[in-house]
Amino acid sequence: MLSHEEIEERLAFARTVVEDAGEIALRYFRQPIEVENKLAGAEFDPVTRADREVEARIRHQLGGAYPDDSIIGEEEGTSAGSSGVAWVIDPIDGTRAFISGVPAWGTLVGLMDGARCVGGLMHQPYIGETFIGSAAGAMLHHRGEHVALKARAGAQLSDAILYCTHPKHFETEADLAAFYRVAEASRLYRFGGDCYSYCLLAQGQIDLVIEGGLQPYDIIPLIPLIEAAGGVVTDWDGKPALSGGNIIAAANPRLHVEALEMLNNV
Amino acid sequence: MLSHEEIEERLAFARTVVEDAGEIALRYFRQPIEVENKLAGAEFDPVTRADREVEARIRHQLGGAYPDDSIIGEEEGTSAGSSGVAWVIDPIDGTRAFISGVPAWGTLVGLMDGARCVGGLMHQPYIGETFIGSAAGAMLHHRGEHVALKARAGAQLSDAILYCTHPKHFETEADLAAFYRVAEASRLYRFGGDCYSYCLLAQGQIDLVIEGGLQPYDIIPLIPLIEAAGGVVTDWDGKPALSGGNIIAAANPRLHVEALEMLNNV
Repeated sequence: MLSHEEIEERLAFARTVVEDAGEIALRYFRQPIEVENKLAGAEFDPVTRADREVEARIRHQLGGAYPDDSIIGEEEGTSAGSSGVAWVIDPIDGTRAFISGVPAWGTLVGLMDGARCVGGLMHQPYIGETFIGSAAGAMLHHRGEHVALKARAGAQLSDAILYCTHPKHFETEADLAAFYRVAEASRLYRFGGDCYSYCLLAQGQIDLVIEGGLQPYDIIPLIPLIEAAGGVVTDWDGKPALSGGNIIAAANPRLHVEALEMLNNV
Repeated sequence: MLSHEEIEERLAFARTVVEDAGEIALRYFRQPIEVENKLAGAEFDPVTRADREVEARIRHQLGGAYPDDSIIGEEEGTSAGSSGVAWVIDPIDGTRAFISGVPAWGTLVGLMDGARCVGGLMHQPYIGETFIGSAAGAMLHHRGEHVALKARAGAQLSDAILYCTHPKHFETEADLAAFYRVAEASRLYRFGGDCYSYCLLAQGQIDLVIEGGLQPYDIIPLIPLIEAAGGVVTDWDGKPALSGGNIIAAANPRLHVEALEMLNNV
């Protein structure tokens, strides 16, 4: 198992890696770029050179520094290592935002020690923000300044702000109806956001994120950030969020229970 | 009527004014802030001290420099002048984004000469962007760099990216159904954005914005930006957008016609 110091050392290095890779992403952001569709047929799941080049750069740098760690990335899959430690990479979470010019996308890197995610980062290079979470705390770095993050400990559903990237991402009508039950009971619900919403929850700006159809790499790197800020993130059964799917993040444990019960109509 | 030079002089001054007022907005952004609800009952239309203080600062500075111009603001209403020139101010367009910590809000200032909006600005201080439009062109200033803006002249509905702030803002079920007719025919539709979406359309990043329930001050300052970039913005009858209500902005005239016909089911 990694020591506290080993975790923090790896995260500090990963921060330099994602911020360096952000320069690659910025070369393509708001520039003409060829967009491929990963899915056949009517569904649109875009991927660009930016996704591939950012992931390649991060894999190269992490692999060079920690050659025994595994690396799991959205675009290139898994390189198995022997250390029991794994890096989980989503090079551009929010590719739809990216190709729209909306700076709500981010580069995500999570650090797994065995079955636990012990640290994670989100970097948004256009705005110039890096969010980092681990047992040492949750922090936002923004253009030379930094601020410790704390989710809203007192938020209840009736005064909660709820975000969800897109209503179309829910996989069933029942899931969408469950989302709307909670949405209508909240103070305000809004769409959009991708990974950025989880960061705003950690910063105490919004109180709930409820989404469907996430991949593991979409959520794993954000778990330590949410938890270090006092929030709770699970799937809709209240189980660990590591597998993706239907996810709920809440600013505090009481709100998590309140919203989860309404999602499941208990 | 204002000369070209008088318009550009006023816009250059207005830029310094909105960027100065942005410092006020930033003092409240992502800080604990009291949110009032402007509407009684179930609907939530937030307003904060930030809205009021930003508008007061802008009114004071514009009124000092151009005492004969009218000033029309979201929070304080109209101060009538004698010059035939009017400033239209939305101090924080996207207050729901503002109170959520999402940097898609902006300070809008439009310059009206008689019945025409001849120039407009959008300033987003957290990201550090100012979008400006007039007959002289459309421009984005971003942290010391600037870029001329051009909407996508060749975009068609089948390859268009469509944005809309929130499906709840449409005033009737028929309006919402009309929106979804266009949305389902587009390549990609997303919610969120507020004034930021119109700026991304001018920058050639997205191709359509279709919204309901806008106020005049929500859209007037954006009209010159959209038009200077080659786009078209009207209400859903194809009439001038100056009165707000149901609005459609398109990246080029052909796409505007194509989407407008589908909105009206012709």
